[in-house]
Parts: sequence; structure tokens; C-alpha cells
Amino acid sequence: MYVVIMAGGRGTRFWPRSRTTKPKQLLDIVGEQTMIQQTVERVLPIAAQANILIVTHKNQVDALKQQLPDIPPENIIAEPLGRNTAPCICLAAAIIQKKAPEAVMAVLPADHYIGDPSGYCECILKAVQAAKNRHALVTIGIRPDRPETGYGYIEFAQNSGLETEEIYRVVSYHEKPDTEKANQYLSRGNYLWNSGMFVWPVATILQNIERFLPNIYREVTDASGAFGTSGFTAILTQAYEKIESISIDYGVMEKTESVLTFEGDFGWNDIGSWSAIYDISKKDKNGNVLSGDVIPVDSRELFVYNKHKLTAVVGLANVVVVETDDALLICSKDRVQDVRNVVDVLEKRGDYEYL
Amino acid sequence: MYVVIMAGGRGTRFWPRSRTTKPKQLLDIVGEQTMIQQTVERVLPIAAQANILIVTHKNQVDALKQQLPDIPPENIIAEPLGRNTAPCICLAAAIIQKKAPEAVMAVLPADHYIGDPSGYCECILKAVQAAKNRHALVTIGIRPDRPETGYGYIEFAQNSGLETEEIYRVVSYHEKPDTEKANQYLSRGNYLWNSGMFVWPVATILQNIERFLPNIYREVTDASGAFGTSGFTAILTQAYEKIESISIDYGVMEKTESVLTFEGDFGWNDIGSWSAIYDISKKDKNGNVLSGDVIPVDSRELFVYNKHKLTAVVGLANVVVVETDDALLICSKDRVQDVRNVVDVLEKRGDYEYL
Repeated sequence: MYVVIMAGGRGTRFWPRSRTTKPKQLLDIVGEQTMIQQTVERVLPIAAQANILIVTHKNQVDALKQQLPDIPPENIIAEPLGRNTAPCICLAAAIIQKKAPEAVMAVLPADHYIGDPSGYCECILKAVQAAKNRHALVTIGIRPDRPETGYGYIEFAQNSGLETEEIYRVVSYHEKPDTEKANQYLSRGNYLWNSGMFVWPVATILQNIERFLPNIYREVTDASGAFGTSGFTAILTQAYEKIESISIDYGVMEKTESVLTFEGDFGWNDIGSWSAIYDISKKDKNGNVLSGDVIPVDSRELFVYNKHKLTAVVGLANVVVVETDDALLICSKDRVQDVRNVVDVLEKRGDYEYL
Repeated sequence: MYVVIMAGGRGTRFWPRSRTTKPKQLLDIVGEQTMIQQTVERVLPIAAQANILIVTHKNQVDALKQQLPDIPPENIIAEPLGRNTAPCICLAAAIIQKKAPEAVMAVLPADHYIGDPSGYCECILKAVQAAKNRHALVTIGIRPDRPETGYGYIEFAQNSGLETEEIYRVVSYHEKPDTEKANQYLSRGNYLWNSGMFVWPVATILQNIERFLPNIYREVTDASGAFGTSGFTAILTQAYEKIESISIDYGVMEKTESVLTFEGDFGWNDIGSWSAIYDISKKDKNGNVLSGDVIPVDSRELFVYNKHKLTAVVGLANVVVVETDDALLICSKDRVQDVRNVVDVLEKRGDYEYL
């Protein structure tokens, strides 16, 4: 069994802490370790360091090697440019197939929060068994506990004869719903959150990529032949420049007939914004989450992160405050998605020092 | 004519910019000059530098000398401890009387905003004439343009036979009113804002202090005999330790029969809080007042002062943000009076570095 951790994200919604050279997965944004360190540590009970591959943007390779000294350096695979998840997964699968053609691989995002790590490992192991036994593409869906509008949903078939294994046939995928639809999904009971975690035999995913994304399959598997040689970077760059940018969900999972979903329930959160960190953090009696020297006066439900200086907040509620060496963000908690607009403004201004 | 500028205030409501050693009057909180520099410059058309006295706390003398190099150093008078305005005015009057017994003195706060400086000087000159001619205590009242609840009011007698000179007899003083009362005061037409500016012959104010505050009169005038000698500081400290802390309004003005008020209308604001600075500042099209590198995203009616780092504000309205080297304040604009609560917390914590 191999674990492939996808660590290519930029995380603009965590500005000003996340920057181009230090995105969310490289930050200690939840807890004391960085997100990628937590992700690696979480799978160590079920995967050897040697069997953990990390695919990332070339700019992040040095930082990853520094943060993960126990991962063999050759397991950190650099993409020359971002092409979404399908090429990334194709590359990792092709590299694994050469070493272990019969392997099952679990594809895991680098920057999600897991409240129950042992439940998570247990779920992955069961999904690995199911994928192996059935030569199937398995996606891990999360049992929803609220009508969340920020996630995509997986609709599965009940009574498909597989229920004894907690595994279901996927019927269709649904984009982020409005509140009304989210309530329907929750009450119907056969909808799961799409977590972006997958388990499959490398042979099965490669067959599917070959079928639905033949151009990506050809270019990326060809280039993967040079993995481990000095020419690899140049060859992979040429290949990536020719291929389209497409997600594995859209390019393969939504097109193939026989996807199974495994139901997980292990306190998952994709930590998509500052308010998600607030949500999973321990609050004080006023509902505040405060890091640093903070004096709240008649204020509640704040998220404040300021390691640099004393912060006093007077008469405010539901506000996010994040200060770094060079920048300060103050944001209404229900507008955290719009932090990316600040990054847009900085890009337009050409202010690369803040990006 | 002498001008006495009272510069003893602490200005806790301007934390984190104002500190014990650098209160509001020493800050460039409105415009490019400090408040005290603006106050001095404003009266130069009607008073010689040699005739301008500044009474302050001993801790602020050095900073004042630095900020006001053209004021004779002996004109900056140090109080050993704060005893409110009555002892301060008594001391200044006694010092002036020795040099010029016939002088009229104008008492002006160091830290108020004046929108129309020439109207202000004109008003003071007229008040000086009236005070001289009538040997009267004259207080300058401000014609209200809104039902302000943040100021005290002076009620004056209409048809007192003095109207031709824009001067009226004071009937009584009123504390800060509630909104209903403030509306009544505004509609009645014979209420003015109490600005804390006074004009009187030194002989007249000293007679009144002698009558209503005999202990202060005796101790302070006795000590003033040592002014200019090396023993002055020690003698004044002894005197101040014996006297009560009391305002000239409460100690004299509200007790004496014959106070006149001169009506001024020169864009006065006592700048009592961060929101007062917002009110008098030029706004952008979203009603924002921004100093420093600020990126507002869908935000309005902000007051942001941050010379240190980039500040992004997302989806907020009516918020005050002030950052200094060592501290950050974020405050709802309608709660700016409660900034002093932050100072209280710091005092309780014994965090003198932030005070």
C-alpha cells in the first residue's frame, strides 16, 4: 500500500499567513505541527515512510524536505507547474506502478483536519481492502452532520447489495448546494461530503486515466519513465506544458461507471478558510479563539492570531484578525471567502512581497 | 494679553498611540503637527511667544521643549502632579500677575481641534475686550449644530442687555445630557457647548479663586513666589500635596454669580476619541479614513491608522483600527469611549510598557 499526499495548493484564503512560497500545508495553522507534518504523522500507523509519496509544486520542495526529514527525499516529487489533480495522480500512479504493479494507493490531501486519526486510518484500511478485492475506484465520502453549503456532495445508491461492507455505489456528484438543497441532501441520507480522498489499485486508476484522459496518460506516463534521472525535470516540464489542467473528479470519477464510496466519519474538515479554523478550535467562555497577547473587551466569537504584538479588541463580534510580520488582516467572519479578493488586489498592484 | 495652554491631559482614549509619556497633545493625531504645536501656531497672530505659557505635568516638559523650540523654556511650567484645572489656572495667573498685574489671560486646552483658526482668534480677541471692559470671567461657548451628548452645556440668559456684543450672562451649567435633553437644548437656542476655554483678567480670576477655593489660592500663590528659583519644584510639590484636585468649572465658574459667555462658531471639536478624529477627517467615497497602506474590500466608514504594515479589511463597517510599534487596537466605532477599559486592564496587569 502506498500513500500519495497531494501538496500543491496555494491557499490564498489564508492570507496573510499563507504566501506563494508558504501555502497552508506548510503552516502550523492548526496545532503545533504544520498541516503536512500532521498528514504524514497521521498515516504512519498504516504506511511506511518509504511508501509515502508527496507531489508538490517545485517551489515547495525545499520547504517540504526541511519539514519532513524522515521522508526519503526522492519521494517528494516536484511538479513544474500546477495542472490540477488528474496529472498529479497519473504521475504518482505511474511512478508507483514501476516499483509495485499490484499496489493500492490512497490519495490524500495535505491540508485537511482530521478529528479522529485512528478512525481515519481504519477507514482507509477498509477502503484499501475493498479497492483491492473489487479492482475498484473508491472515494471516501464523509457522513454530513449539518447542511453544509461549502462542500460538494456524493450521491450513492442504497440497497446496492454492498452495504455490509459500509461501501456503496456512487450514483452522481453534486456541486456545492444552496441551503435548501443542502437540507434535502442531509435528510435524504444517501449523500456524503466529497472529501477529495481516493483509494484504488494503481493499475485501475491508470486504466481509467488512459480511457478518459488519453493525452494526459500518454504524456505523463512517458515522462515518468525518466523519474530518478537527471533529465526528469526537463522532460516532465515539456509534458506538463502540453497537457490540460483538469481535476480527477471531473476528468475521471464523474465519467466512469463503477465508482464506490466508503463512508467515513472521523471529524473531517477541509479547513477552507479562517472561519473553519475557528470552528474546530476550542473557544473560551465568550466564544473567542485567541492566539498571542489579546485583550478582548466586551467582544465575542473572535478569531485572533497575533504573535507579534498586543492586540486589544473592543465591542466587536465575529471578526477574524490575523497579523504577520508585514501584514494585518481584519475580516468579518462570514466574509472569510473574500480574503482571496485581497490577494487579487495585491496581484493587480504587482505587490509580490505580500503574495 | 497672555495665553495659558493647559497641557496636562493623559488621553487614555487614544491608546495605543497615546501613552503616559506621550499623551494626545504631544501626538500628530490630526494633521502633520502635534496638537500642542497646532495650538501654539493658532494663537501666534494674537499673542507673542513670550506671552504664551504652557502648564503641564513634569514628565512632559522635555517633550514640550523639543516640540516648541520657539517658546521660551521658562514659559513651560511643570506641575509635580495633576490636580485638575483650578490649581493649574491659579498657578499660571499668579505667575502672570507678578509680571503684568493688569493682564488679561486666555486659558486654552492644548488638544482641541479648530476648523476656522482666524474665527477662533477673532473670538478670543473680542472676549479679551469684553473681559477687560467688564472685569469679568468669560467662558467661550460653542454654538451647537447637533444634539451632541458628549459635551457639557452652558445655559445663558437671552435679553440680558448684552446681546449687541455677542456676549451673554450665564444662567447655569449642565452635565452631558441624554439625547432627549440634548435635542431640547438644541431647539431652545440659549445653550452652548462648554469648550473649556476661558478669558479673564488675572486679577479677577485670582479674586474668585481666593473667594471660593481659599486653600488652593493660599498654597499655590505662596508657592508661585518661588517661580524662577531653584527651589520652585520642591516648594510647588509641597503645595500640590496639600491641595484638593478640582476643576475651575466646579470650583469657581458654577459658584460665582457673574460669568459671561461669548458665543464662538469656529469648527470646534474637543477630539475626545478616535471617532471624533474620524468625524473631522476627509472621507473617501466609501466613507473611509485610511492612513498607511490599506486595502479595504467591501468595507465602509472605517478609521484605519497603520504606518507599520499593510492592512486589509474585508466586509466590515464602522470599525477603528490603530496600530503602533507594539500594540494593535480594533474597536467598534460606537464603543471608542471604552478604549479606556483596555488601559484599565493593562494597569491591572501591571503592563507598564504599554501604558
